[in-house]
Amino acid sequence: MTRIARYHVEAQTGVGFLLKQEQLLTIIDPQGEQSGDLVAFGQTDKTEWLSSGRSIDYNGTIYLTTGHVLYSNRSTAMFTIVEDTVGKHDFLFASCSPEMFRREYRIEGYHPSCFENLGKNLAPFGITGDRLPTSFNFFMNASVLPTGAIKIAPPLSRPGGFVRLRAEMDLIVGISACSAPGCNNGTCKPIDVEITGSMST
Amino acid sequence: MTRIARYHVEAQTGVGFLLKQEQLLTIIDPQGEQSGDLVAFGQTDKTEWLSSGRSIDYNGTIYLTTGHVLYSNRSTAMFTIVEDTVGKHDFLFASCSPEMFRREYRIEGYHPSCFENLGKNLAPFGITGDRLPTSFNFFMNASVLPTGAIKIAPPLSRPGGFVRLRAEMDLIVGISACSAPGCNNGTCKPIDVEITGSMST
Repeated sequence: MTRIARYHVEAQTGVGFLLKQEQLLTIIDPQGEQSGDLVAFGQTDKTEWLSSGRSIDYNGTIYLTTGHVLYSNRSTAMFTIVEDTVGKHDFLFASCSPEMFRREYRIEGYHPSCFENLGKNLAPFGITGDRLPTSFNFFMNASVLPTGAIKIAPPLSRPGGFVRLRAEMDLIVGISACSAPGCNNGTCKPIDVEITGSMST
Repeated sequence: MTRIARYHVEAQTGVGFLLKQEQLLTIIDPQGEQSGDLVAFGQTDKTEWLSSGRSIDYNGTIYLTTGHVLYSNRSTAMFTIVEDTVGKHDFLFASCSPEMFRREYRIEGYHPSCFENLGKNLAPFGITGDRLPTSFNFFMNASVLPTGAIKIAPPLSRPGGFVRLRAEMDLIVGISACSAPGCNNGTCKPIDVEITGSMST
């Protein structure tokens, strides 16, 4: 298995890249207790995008882990989760954004956000912020209580914990290290991303 | 309060219409136990759309009812739920689609779907199927179990049950009477839609 690329995503930043069908995308939490956001679009046709609603429906669960498939708005498999040392990820929330920090953290000035970081890093691929769908929240520890209320606890990821996804089609991918202290046990930390596979696929 | 429009949405069909800020949209289940899908876009700028991820985040719950606000991808309030005789609606699933019927009902031939009906009825407003976000599933009775698995039960709506939403901005709205028997206690039935308010707002 050839290493094709590795990105160190600094705290409160993001990265955008291309992923080919059959390549493996490993998202690593180097320090532990850090979540992040993943969004994806078709390389061939950018109007195809990773859909929370299709993925929740077809997997029949809101918690996603090994063996689950992440689907596009057109019901096409985009990723399969092939390995997962953390075991809990969700698909409930849109990326944290300046408006979210104003609303939930009462921050009126500038604050970095997954929304900004995904938009900035996907812009070179022609994806604008308005097109960002509800994101796959990896390592996020959100639990739905019987009332329907959502409780966010520190991520279950330990240092070096990872989730590995196989690309099922050619993709444009955006990943951010989450900028919201409340989702990351108080401190925003980096995320590592590794792409492995064959160059020729 | 003036009645501006009333639509009888036949079983397994949909409707698209404009709604002005401050108008009231009442979605009625005339026979009971029938769910449906709602999607919305900005009239002024169609790249603004009703977002499950923002709405779940800002309300802090997956079950939405009176007093909750439904937000756009830009964190703008699109609707407030002002009255609700049913009490349970969710924002977890994408609209049922031909691919969903193939996958979950093993139907290979044509089957009507919310995806087709929303797309067809929003096309005159310039909204294509690829842009349909995860829909607000009114009267749908989806429960998240402690494992994260989702259980769909017959809708709680009785004949004449309704949910009333106030438009918080000028909107393009699509509504469908759900085409999936499994979400509607075995039989797909109609939905009624009423718009009231001032013509001049």
